Amino acid sequence: MKQNVAQKLISKHMVSGEMQPGKEIGLKIDQTLTQDATGTMVMLELEAMGIDRVKTEASAQYVDHNLIQEDFRNADDHLFLRSAARKFGIYYSRPGNGVSHPVHMQQLAKPGKTLLGSDSHTCANGCMGMLAMGAGGIDVAMAMAGEPYYVKMPKVMGVKLTGKLPEWVSAKDVILELLRRHDVKGGVGKIIEYYGPGVKNLSAMDRHVIANMGAELGATATVFPSDKEIKNFLRQQGREADWIELKADRGAKYDEEENIELSTLEPLIAKPSSPGNVVPVSEVEEETIYQSYIGSSANPGYRDFAIASEIVKGKQIASGISFDINPTSRQLLEQLVENGHIANLLSAGARMHQAGCNGCIGMGQAPATGRNSLRTTPRNFPGRSGTREDSVFLCSPETAAASALTGKITDPRTLDMKYPRIQEPKKFTTEGMLEAPPTNTDVELEKGPNITTIPDFEPIKNNFDLPILLKMTDNISTDEILAGGSRVLPYRSNIQKISTFAFEIVDEDYYENAMKKRDNGGHVLVAGVNYGQGSSREHAALAPRYLGLKVVLVKDFARIHLQNLINFGILPLTFVNETDYDYLSQDDILEFRDIHETIQVTDTFDIKLKGTDRNIPVRHDLTKRHIDIILQGGIINWIKQKQK
Amino acid sequence: MKQNVAQKLISKHMVSGEMQPGKEIGLKIDQTLTQDATGTMVMLELEAMGIDRVKTEASAQYVDHNLIQEDFRNADDHLFLRSAARKFGIYYSRPGNGVSHPVHMQQLAKPGKTLLGSDSHTCANGCMGMLAMGAGGIDVAMAMAGEPYYVKMPKVMGVKLTGKLPEWVSAKDVILELLRRHDVKGGVGKIIEYYGPGVKNLSAMDRHVIANMGAELGATATVFPSDKEIKNFLRQQGREADWIELKADRGAKYDEEENIELSTLEPLIAKPSSPGNVVPVSEVEEETIYQSYIGSSANPGYRDFAIASEIVKGKQIASGISFDINPTSRQLLEQLVENGHIANLLSAGARMHQAGCNGCIGMGQAPATGRNSLRTTPRNFPGRSGTREDSVFLCSPETAAASALTGKITDPRTLDMKYPRIQEPKKFTTEGMLEAPPTNTDVELEKGPNITTIPDFEPIKNNFDLPILLKMTDNISTDEILAGGSRVLPYRSNIQKISTFAFEIVDEDYYENAMKKRDNGGHVLVAGVNYGQGSSREHAALAPRYLGLKVVLVKDFARIHLQNLINFGILPLTFVNETDYDYLSQDDILEFRDIHETIQVTDTFDIKLKGTDRNIPVRHDLTKRHIDIILQGGIINWIKQKQK
Repeated sequence: MKQNVAQKLISKHMVSGEMQPGKEIGLKIDQTLTQDATGTMVMLELEAMGIDRVKTEASAQYVDHNLIQEDFRNADDHLFLRSAARKFGIYYSRPGNGVSHPVHMQQLAKPGKTLLGSDSHTCANGCMGMLAMGAGGIDVAMAMAGEPYYVKMPKVMGVKLTGKLPEWVSAKDVILELLRRHDVKGGVGKIIEYYGPGVKNLSAMDRHVIANMGAELGATATVFPSDKEIKNFLRQQGREADWIELKADRGAKYDEEENIELSTLEPLIAKPSSPGNVVPVSEVEEETIYQSYIGSSANPGYRDFAIASEIVKGKQIASGISFDINPTSRQLLEQLVENGHIANLLSAGARMHQAGCNGCIGMGQAPATGRNSLRTTPRNFPGRSGTREDSVFLCSPETAAASALTGKITDPRTLDMKYPRIQEPKKFTTEGMLEAPPTNTDVELEKGPNITTIPDFEPIKNNFDLPILLKMTDNISTDEILAGGSRVLPYRSNIQKISTFAFEIVDEDYYENAMKKRDNGGHVLVAGVNYGQGSSREHAALAPRYLGLKVVLVKDFARIHLQNLINFGILPLTFVNETDYDYLSQDDILEFRDIHETIQVTDTFDIKLKGTDRNIPVRHDLTKRHIDIILQGGIINWIKQKQK
Repeated sequence: MKQNVAQKLISKHMVSGEMQPGKEIGLKIDQTLTQDATGTMVMLELEAMGIDRVKTEASAQYVDHNLIQEDFRNADDHLFLRSAARKFGIYYSRPGNGVSHPVHMQQLAKPGKTLLGSDSHTCANGCMGMLAMGAGGIDVAMAMAGEPYYVKMPKVMGVKLTGKLPEWVSAKDVILELLRRHDVKGGVGKIIEYYGPGVKNLSAMDRHVIANMGAELGATATVFPSDKEIKNFLRQQGREADWIELKADRGAKYDEEENIELSTLEPLIAKPSSPGNVVPVSEVEEETIYQSYIGSSANPGYRDFAIASEIVKGKQIASGISFDINPTSRQLLEQLVENGHIANLLSAGARMHQAGCNGCIGMGQAPATGRNSLRTTPRNFPGRSGTREDSVFLCSPETAAASALTGKITDPRTLDMKYPRIQEPKKFTTEGMLEAPPTNTDVELEKGPNITTIPDFEPIKNNFDLPILLKMTDNISTDEILAGGSRVLPYRSNIQKISTFAFEIVDEDYYENAMKKRDNGGHVLVAGVNYGQGSSREHAALAPRYLGLKVVLVKDFARIHLQNLINFGILPLTFVNETDYDYLSQDDILEFRDIHETIQVTDTFDIKLKGTDRNIPVRHDLTKRHIDIILQGGIINWIKQKQK
């Protein structure tokens, strides 16, 4: 059979199942990445499982999220992660090295390999001809322990690229165009594979930009072929030997087809507060801004900063604008320093921040009340910036730099200047400073006082009545379930404490109400479509679980969050008839009967709205393995049982 | 009469009083500086006073403290400060320009002038042949309004410098030597004036280092002569025309004398948790460290970073160390970039942070639990780093860089290398980006939702009984009264909210207890010597005042905090017999009788310990103006009354 790149990667790594869209497959995982916000939990899970040494070809632990260190907690975590990396045989990337995705790409990514990461933008490394997927922390822990990663075989959407990008239009506009066409659910259950003659006109880092924001389409993964551009990239890193060619067979088929003629694109922008809310920049021109922000894994490349530098070179940004530059890696920052770009940016009035995720994850740089913020970051979900009622636009570095100069949203094509051409460095002058683990595993874990153990969870009961504690709308993101940001994330290894922040954006009283119901059996949550989109953080399942969440009933789920719910023993159900959503209200009681047997024998059954005659047909989409996990109360109980 | 530099500066600016130590003098203030943590309050005060335009020669508003922006509040404040600067005719230094003290020195400082700043390290600009003093925000607001600044005429301590610093010993070691000899109270009530043949061997920025940490000696000010080095410095900045010569008359006298032969000094270090806890580095060698931190207004110079760069050049810092580089100004950062120093630091493994105060004021970079942090910052009071039980050492950049390489506290003289010689840039390539105010004053103040008005305060009663809510020890700093840091400082314009953090390091229940007593008349605080040392933040008076603080009874006060207490209508008393301190306990009730008349007719009177026969003789040290202010309930009421 003629195979596309996605099928080649999957068939090479498949250990169970069959390559039929919708069927569960088990995949061997070659590489993993964890970052610090999710990684402490992963390391605690490895410890709980009694793992000596990870079984992957390469695993790396990055410290990029919690860099601010307002007290001992983040610093303690860094030391804990370093000790765990040394103990379990993991590369350690110290604070200041940069964001996991570009650093992994630079240091460890290899065409033809699988990568699982506890960060939803792990898909970015699909740019390297890898199958790279974001997952919950515990899935990544399982992969590190040598277990396969189970996922439903996605459909493959082929996106044929033709032509070449015009001046002032760059990779960010390509992915914004796809978001304009397909919105934030358009990639759910799919791998997006780019192919065609236009691919060669995109550098490896351009592809990173596009693959990264596959997460915003809800896609399982994004893949690109491994071609000469990838070889060039690896040569820049002194890793040419890691290159293999990987391309779709001539005549390979795709489950869905899409075409983008690059030359027809224009500068695009996602308006507040969804990455799918895309319009041409020219439609929102003249809106005044508070902030222009360049950086993040959605625009991590040398060219992304260099082009901004060339645009503002010798000029001054508009008065009163915060022009924030967030370098994505140490290596890149050094190169930008060496080539004069940082000097240009500083002279124009930029604020230079440390290499890392920073404001992209709400770690500083929040905008002023009621003011517009332009960002090259991947997400503009409400409150993600740190300012609750924020107004964040997503755009290319060209648009962000042009707008910094004028003080209002500006189509960069209207600048009176020649489009700068950026020459990529032949070779980066320094290495990335990953610390390889010692061969000796006799390392003590260094646990600070804020690192607590994961609470024990009881399995779900057989018969129970539970109240609906929240009824939510469509597209509830994990940022709304459990915010990121420096107020919350320092408690990521302290479930009891982090739970106090759950759903606070949706309903300030959720925590208090949930605690009241917890010892009476807990509660149910109801929501619309695409529930749990966004970040992969498993705390968005763990925290509500700790507060007594037993069942989530929605129109449909975002993939990673669904997996996290299962992993922590929460029963995920969808409406058979979406109109039934309208009959439910907050504080209604739902009756669940004979659940243990029911979910094993059927995937569709009724629950009753207490005090009425109404039965609501619901569906689950669980494999036998999922059901086992839920009936044991989650994957930690399940693994413990398996090891007995 | 033959005058020293301090006397020359004072006599030129004195508008009332006489130059006799201990007598109050009124000084004309030529320049002011405010930073963002104290500046929002100053601007609200200017607004409350109905000021149109400041009356100083130059006033500047710097944004350097609250740069993290975890939500809208800091960003809103920046916009508010910019609008206030434009309205009142003040230079505005945007976020990213750097720390107030070095930026002011670079852009505005002039020999022969007076400078008052709402930051305790304002004294740093004494390096320029200025009389530069830190004060509470409201004192600075009054100076901006054209009122004189009142201070007791200090003694002048002459420190004669001879000789030249040996290799590996730098300006920081000079001020640490003075702290070793005189401790944190050694400068109280004094101006420290450096003179002698050794002065010429210290650059203007070296003198900044020394003048800056005059604050840690408790000194009112530090002055240096204005000589050729100052001319060179101004030339670097393109401001040679601002230079005048200023030196002590031959044969001028000092109230106290001290001598330092520079060539005899060795690398010194202040151990936790006081800047006065100084020992030779060699005494604490081999202590392992978590962090090496270079930056802050205590080591802000080009050479301070360049020397660290040359020490680590081509090497790697020890594994697991956080090597934090905090550039002090945009101008300096650009120059360090241009000359390759930033590249050296990054290659060695440094974390580069934005230009500003950062970790020096607890804004990030807090050390791990129980781990040693080496810093070039001026202060190591408990908890100031952000980690409550921290272990912070203060040292020179040489010692910090050497220790980053070895991973333990290291005397830099033991490094196997030649001492690097740093060439100062002839001229800095870029300007400092201060925004001059528009001539048009028709500017609206931009007030975000977190900027509230100052609460009204009632004048002190005539007869009252009050409980002692806290009995504290010696050297309680304003960091203990009201912490800095990113958890607290965002509420600096919201007295009601910021009060919840008052004394939390000393007693977690203070807020709750104070609120219980507030409507019953309030409370008294008792402490030992040097009460209120450290930061000048007036919130350390405002917040307890809001919570009902009426009287502070201590062995003695730090100067700025004493002034802040008076400004907000709190009666500051000292023990006539220090042994009486021992008879008082928390929760004792003190009886105050006929206070209004008593404090006007005598400076010594008795208060009674309720339920006993014990009378405690106490003293106040208030001028008639102070008494007026206290009897009106604080300076805002007083100015309102005056304007009627």
